Parts: sequence; structure tokens; C-alpha cells
Amino acid sequence: MDVVDIIRAKRDGNTLTTDPIEWFIRSYTDGSVADEQASALLMAIVWRGMEPDELTTWTSAMIGSGERLDLSSIAAPTADKHSTGGVGDKVSLILAPLVAACGVADPMLSGRGLGHTGGTLDKLESIPGYRVNLEPAEVLRILAGVGCVICSAGAGLVPADRKLYALRDVTGTVESIPLIASSIMSKKIAEGTDALVLDVKVGSGAFLPEVDTARRLAETMVELGAAHGVKTSALLTNMDTPLGRTAGNALEVTESVEALTGNGARDLMEVTFALAREMLSLAGVNEDVERCIADGRALTKWRELVVAQGGDPDAELPEAPERRTLGAPASGWITRMDARSVGIAAWRLGAGRARKEDPVSATAGVVCIKKPGDRVDEGEPILELQTDDPSRFDPALEALARVVEVGPAEPEPAPLVIERIGP
Amino acid sequence: MDVVDIIRAKRDGNTLTTDPIEWFIRSYTDGSVADEQASALLMAIVWRGMEPDELTTWTSAMIGSGERLDLSSIAAPTADKHSTGGVGDKVSLILAPLVAACGVADPMLSGRGLGHTGGTLDKLESIPGYRVNLEPAEVLRILAGVGCVICSAGAGLVPADRKLYALRDVTGTVESIPLIASSIMSKKIAEGTDALVLDVKVGSGAFLPEVDTARRLAETMVELGAAHGVKTSALLTNMDTPLGRTAGNALEVTESVEALTGNGARDLMEVTFALAREMLSLAGVNEDVERCIADGRALTKWRELVVAQGGDPDAELPEAPERRTLGAPASGWITRMDARSVGIAAWRLGAGRARKEDPVSATAGVVCIKKPGDRVDEGEPILELQTDDPSRFDPALEALARVVEVGPAEPEPAPLVIERIGP
Repeated sequence: MDVVDIIRAKRDGNTLTTDPIEWFIRSYTDGSVADEQASALLMAIVWRGMEPDELTTWTSAMIGSGERLDLSSIAAPTADKHSTGGVGDKVSLILAPLVAACGVADPMLSGRGLGHTGGTLDKLESIPGYRVNLEPAEVLRILAGVGCVICSAGAGLVPADRKLYALRDVTGTVESIPLIASSIMSKKIAEGTDALVLDVKVGSGAFLPEVDTARRLAETMVELGAAHGVKTSALLTNMDTPLGRTAGNALEVTESVEALTGNGARDLMEVTFALAREMLSLAGVNEDVERCIADGRALTKWRELVVAQGGDPDAELPEAPERRTLGAPASGWITRMDARSVGIAAWRLGAGRARKEDPVSATAGVVCIKKPGDRVDEGEPILELQTDDPSRFDPALEALARVVEVGPAEPEPAPLVIERIGP
Repeated sequence: MDVVDIIRAKRDGNTLTTDPIEWFIRSYTDGSVADEQASALLMAIVWRGMEPDELTTWTSAMIGSGERLDLSSIAAPTADKHSTGGVGDKVSLILAPLVAACGVADPMLSGRGLGHTGGTLDKLESIPGYRVNLEPAEVLRILAGVGCVICSAGAGLVPADRKLYALRDVTGTVESIPLIASSIMSKKIAEGTDALVLDVKVGSGAFLPEVDTARRLAETMVELGAAHGVKTSALLTNMDTPLGRTAGNALEVTESVEALTGNGARDLMEVTFALAREMLSLAGVNEDVERCIADGRALTKWRELVVAQGGDPDAELPEAPERRTLGAPASGWITRMDARSVGIAAWRLGAGRARKEDPVSATAGVVCIKKPGDRVDEGEPILELQTDDPSRFDPALEALARVVEVGPAEPEPAPLVIERIGP
């Protein structure tokens, strides 16, 4: 095998076959193919795309680069959810204990935030004591005992993706449907789950704002899941507006606990329940997810989860010392609140990171005092900015210069679940 | 400047402006942009191409990465020739002394062979004592004294191209008109010549076999030369058949000396004279190039050149100890002799290298006993293979399995100069 031949074949629009794909993934993972050769191939893939069978082989080779979790010891059916990332998207924190309370085990291996979208692990780490790095045996023990676990993917899981993802990040090769799909699905398939629901965000705060692109990604991932024997479906959900009332780490944990006690924001709960029903349906479990919140079973599961991972569910979460509000630019009804602007503001306040190795602030973030559909008077506070460092207010406010539109009439609420893709 | 933004811009089909291009070339040359980022950008350029102004800026930035030769001390008009490489293409060895004898100074900075095409420096090094590595002051002294010099480009000339060329070689990003054109032209412009004639080969033995692609490359290079104030034209010449009677290092030196004494093969001299007339015309010199061979002035110049560069023009050249002939597959007229097959055979016999750092054999090569248009009987020797190592005969003969076609009638000779491109 000659890597230059493989690069040239892809560059010239050919479909790569099994042997070169497996050889490439193995050789790049072990370091015998150089970064500059891998990035040239990645750019050729961005250019030429991948045929379905080719992508299945590529994804299988990525999975084969490391270990797979073996969930055969888990008696309950297993299902997981993956989101392509949004602003205020704390659904995972509510969903995992919710479906666990319904009898579906959720082995939720999660990631950190990068850029303007938050990361589940960053949020959970604002809980004193919560450990996100677990050994595989501990993952299985918590999953068996509690019914869900939310932790980081260990280093042994899809090492090819770790290298490829880091490389794509610095070489302008992130934006490719097959590369995104294989990165997400290799990790979720290696996780060992029976079923998987994908929350593919659409709109200004989403990684892929356009519905057509998001749909292609969703279809590609659903096909990849099926090709690997994982029951997979996807919901396209709206991410034009921040989800719920907060964007930030501790802020979102607090809001999630409120949601688990039955006080969740309408939009947040609509998306959470839709995803929960989809997971239960794929897992073949018939339960009333709304009742599971109402009767406190989901909250109990949450507390068990936090304790199992070393956290204190009753601990006070840290709060930001510095706060400032943003007033409505006019009187009327808020017709739009731009998710990306809020995400960038929260990031600049300290909630997110610019580089993988940067720390994040537990407390920084944005509280949405008002949301689209609310009536406001000019100057009335609509957002509260929170941070540890007041020098961050100005850059955050800059991102919020046009965050809302105010109109003369109450807007129609936008549908949150746009489309379902799956069998 | 962020290199990822530059890569993404090119990937998305945008035209790069001066600042990012200059920043990228400078940063890649000094090592602050990584190889994997540069190769991703190169693949995006293979994909998206470059606009004429963009390519001019890119080429200027490459030239600016190093020194330029200053030929202002040379009284004679200067002109050079560059060939895209062929099989049996020893034109440079005849042309430089020929135009020098006509009063045009030729600062011919040359390269080595890679793959099935030979390299001028490899050929010259088969002359005992000939030195190809000269200091800039020595280049100027020989050019002023003899009227021509054939040596390697020093390390200070276009260092950006050294890095980019080596990177392209291992990342499948060689085949791109703008990248090829900027690599060739940056070096020729930095060489300081007033005029430049490009010999762009077309046909089986050429780097770009298709006439349309070769024409686009020629047009691109002619434009780039003009944009940098170098009078530039190009001839598309036929490389379906090996040029002259030999392919190999010492073999081609011997054939070149024969040509300079007036015994050159018809096809070799037709291409050489066409290029010489083109160089004289661009340099504004009116001389009869055929007479310059006939009266021995060109040969005298050759001897001066070899002596000036440390070689002995009367030295016996090394000869290969092992020889084998290949017979005609049928009786009739040879209608075709495949240049690429002969080039690969010569390479496998030892005349060429697979990797940059490999040595080459001075003696190995192929002698064309017959050429297209010759009448042969079945089994009559048409090629002689020469090597130091008899184990190389079999792989070479394998490359020659279908080297000739023999037909029932004498073929029309193919035109050698296909097209002229230039002002």
C-alpha cells in the first residue's frame, strides 16, 4: 500500500475499497502515515465525499482502531442520544436519568464544548466532586446499578477519531458530512448501545445551520447506525433560539435540576420529551415520560447518578460575582432571539474555550430573562450576563448587539421538532 | 492571520488575496505553519485552482522567500529554456552552448531526474570532474566568461519551492496546473533571465500527456513570466517517441557531443533548433543556429563550458558492461516507439531514481537502434539495453513488452513542434 496512491485515488474521485481504507486508518493511528498525508486525504474527502459503502467501511475501520464497550452484562435495553451541539442544550442532563427511570439504560459517553456550543462534561464538572473520567469497569458498574452514566469516552475508544479530529480542527477539514458522520457514529457505535437517537440541530446556533445540510448529515448517520446494527433515528430540532433559560455550565445544571423537578421551560421539555419517546420507542419500552418527571422518579435517578459519579447532589453550585443586564431595544413582542449570539456571548464570558486545552469557568453564562413570544418594554432587562471577570462584559455585549428582534405583534411559536428521520 | 481561515477560504472556492498569500508562504517557509496545514491548502488548490492574479501573487511570494540571481553584470542578453521533462531529452546540453555561441548568455539552473524522465545534472555528472554545485559568484563568472552555465539552483533560491515541492511529492498534490506553473516559474524568474522559452512536452513520455492540459500549463506559465517582466514563450513538442537515439546519462552526453559536431538525430535537432531560434528571437539576436553547429562554434562553447565547470571534455565516459538487445516483434515499418516504456526501462536499468536521495548509474540506459519510420525484419535488434547490473534486464524488458508497433507501410513522420504559445 502506498498512501500517495490512496490520496490520488480519492483526489481523482474514485471510491476507496476496504483494504486501502483499513490500511490507512491503521497506519495513521500508529503514526506510520504522516499528518500531512492524512490532511491531504481529508481535504480530498471534503472535496469528493464518500459513497455509502465506502463510509461504512471507513467508520468500521475507525471503530476497529480501538476497544468497544461490551454492554452484554446490562440486563436493560440500552439507548443513547447524541446532539450535534447547541446553545443552552442541557437536554442530556435531563434525558439520561429520565430514560433510566423508564427502564432504558443510557451509556452516555460525552464530550466537552468547543467554540460557542457548550459541552455536557463541562457542565457536570461544575458539580463539586463529579468525576467524568471513569474506568470501563466503573462505567459498567454505574450503568448496571443506576441505569445511566454520563462520562468521557476513554482513550481506548476510537483512537483514530482522536487523531483525525485534532487534525481536522487545524486543517480546515471539519466541514464534511462523511467526516462528521463517521466521527460521531464511530464513537457511539463503539460505546455498545443497542439504539441511538440523534438530535441534529438546525438554525443559527447549530454547527450546520442549513436544514438541507443537517438532513443529509442525519440521513448519513442513520444509515451508518443501521449498517452497524444499531437501531438509529434522528430528529432535526430548531436551534435558532437558545434552548431553555440559560447558557453556561453551572447555570445549565441548575436549570436541568429545575426541569427534573417539573419546572422546565416549555421548549426545553418539548425537545427532551420528544427525544425520550424516540429512545423508548427504539428500545421497545412503553412508559409515560411526562409522568416520570411529574412523580419524581427522574429526579431520584439524577441524584443517584451524581452520587455514583462522586458528586454531591445537594451541594451549592458556584455563582458568578459579576452580573450585568441587557435591555430590550424597543417595546413590543420579542420575535427572535439569536442562539449563535447568545452562545458567543456565553463563550466570551468564560463558559466556553477557544482551544481544547483551555479551562472553562463554571459560573459564567447568559440567563434569558425573556424569550421569543414575551412582551417587553424598551429598556426592560431581557438577558443577564454573568462572569467572574468584568473585562469580559464588553466583548460579550458586542456579540449581543443584534441578539433580539422586537415586533408589533405576538409571533407564532416556531416548531421545535422539525422532522424525524429513521425507520 | 489564521492559517485555518486561509485553508477554509480556498476550500470554499474563494480567491486568496495578497496578505494571506504572502503570510502563508513566509510562515510555511519559516516553519510556523505546519506541513499538515500546508498540504490541506495544497489539496484545496488542486481542487479549486487559482485565478491568474492570485497565482501571480503566489509565485511572487515564492520568489520573495529567497534570493534572486543578479545578472546585471552580464553584458549579453540572457535567455534560458526549461523543459517539463521527457525521455531522451538531452536538448539542454546542446542548446546552452549553441545559444551562447550565438551571443545569448544562458544561466541554466537545472534539476535532477525523478521517475522515468532524466535530469540534466545527472547527465552532466557522468563527465569526470564536472561540478554542478557552484557558488553564485562562480555562476556569474562562468556565465560572463563562457556565455553559459549549467548547474544546480543553490539552496538560497526559492526555498519555499523546496519545501512545497517535497511536500507535494508525498501528499498527492503534484498534479495541479497552478502549483506546477508556480514551482517552475518561481525558480526561472529568480534565476534572473531576461527571456525564457518553455519546452512543454506532450505525449506518452511527458509528465502531462494530454495536449489540452499541456497547453493550459504553457499558457499559465507564459502569463506568469509576462506578469514578472520576463519575455516568455512556449513550444508544445511531441514526446510520444524518445528524443534522439539514447536515454541514459553518459549515453546522452555522448549523443549531445555528436549532435554538437553536426551528427545529431533529425528529431533531436529539429526540437533543439526550434527552441534555439525562439530564444534568440526573444533575446533580439539574429544568428543562424544551424551554421553555428556546422562551423564548430557550438562545440567549442561546449568544451569551454565543461572545462569551466571542472570537467574534462576529452575524458572517456564510462560504459555499461552488460548489454542486451530487443528484437522487432514483426517485419515491417516501426510506426510507434513508446517514450514512456523506454523511459521506464532506462530508469529500471539504473539511469533514474525512485526517491530523491537515491544514486543513479552513469552508464545505464537504452539505445534506440531503430526509430519510427525505420524498416525492420522480425527479430532484428531495435533497442539495446545497457546496465551495470544484469538482474535489471528482466524488469526493464517487462516495461518494453509493447514498446513498438510495426505496420505494413511507412508512417508519416509526426510533427515535433506542435504549437507555439507566446506574444
